[in-house]
Amino acid sequence: MNIDDIMETIETIKSRRSIRGFTDENLDDETVTSILEAGRWAPSGLNNQPWRFIVVRNPETKVELSKLTVYGPTIKNAPLLVVVFLDKEHMYHYVKDIQSIGACIQNMLLCIHSMGLGGVWLGEILKSGEMANKILDAPDSYELMAVVAIGHPASKPRIPERKELDQLVFREKFGKSW
Amino acid sequence: MNIDDIMETIETIKSRRSIRGFTDENLDDETVTSILEAGRWAPSGLNNQPWRFIVVRNPETKVELSKLTVYGPTIKNAPLLVVVFLDKEHMYHYVKDIQSIGACIQNMLLCIHSMGLGGVWLGEILKSGEMANKILDAPDSYELMAVVAIGHPASKPRIPERKELDQLVFREKFGKSW
Repeated sequence: MNIDDIMETIETIKSRRSIRGFTDENLDDETVTSILEAGRWAPSGLNNQPWRFIVVRNPETKVELSKLTVYGPTIKNAPLLVVVFLDKEHMYHYVKDIQSIGACIQNMLLCIHSMGLGGVWLGEILKSGEMANKILDAPDSYELMAVVAIGHPASKPRIPERKELDQLVFREKFGKSW
Repeated sequence: MNIDDIMETIETIKSRRSIRGFTDENLDDETVTSILEAGRWAPSGLNNQPWRFIVVRNPETKVELSKLTVYGPTIKNAPLLVVVFLDKEHMYHYVKDIQSIGACIQNMLLCIHSMGLGGVWLGEILKSGEMANKILDAPDSYELMAVVAIGHPASKPRIPERKELDQLVFREKFGKSW
């Protein structure tokens, strides 16, 4: 791999932002499949692949889901939602499975960003997981993990703050700063 | 962003594999900083950035850590370890924090792969989290989340299986396949 390729992946990682405002333009199935493909290639413990997805475009379903979270307007206005679940029938270790779901969501967000689309990872709705399952006919074994709202960006994102590495990293043992 | 850039990020996501065998070649601080930078830019709930890292190169520390997991040989032979913790003093929601740690680890793995290096996400050691904390002088508020072993690849990875999308994805509601 050459230096441009290296820079491109790192640049995608660093320039990704949460996008909460979308135009009316829809996403076709091919685009959505690319996003889901990226999610599918995340690593998981013992390769158990515990992620499951329900793709929602139906406006009525979006309105119902939007009532379950303070971020309802984003859910209602996004042309497409990928609702992400942990399938507890295929769990092997709760903490590691949840980490792998995080890796899967991040893959999708990076793919979305690299395609010039915008997305936001919504977690506040987890408090209403049971209601979301009812709306989507999801079985009890499906535990709601996140809703990713996706579309063509209408708004410029603000640049978020990040802690500096010297607040996060230690050399060899705790206490000796990087 | 042009089509090559899109393809590059997706290609990095899809071609990343777990690498468990490494040459003796070391990683300089600049390289390690790039990897940690990628981790630092992961998203987290309320931007709480709960990840903390201890970078280990010391052979004696690696030998001690290697005794805590069945994957000891990988830990002992890797030139460098990034030990990843959740700082419970900066937690806001256990599930969402663990997801964001997964996103952070995935960013680092993608960065490692894009630089032509190899890495593996080790989770089996979590069963010995308290012992790992002692070895690394980490405070009680640090919960071990993973060890990422990193180096120059010595072995060709096998290609892992992945479930097909039609086993994972539903359209609009559960039951109607993608």
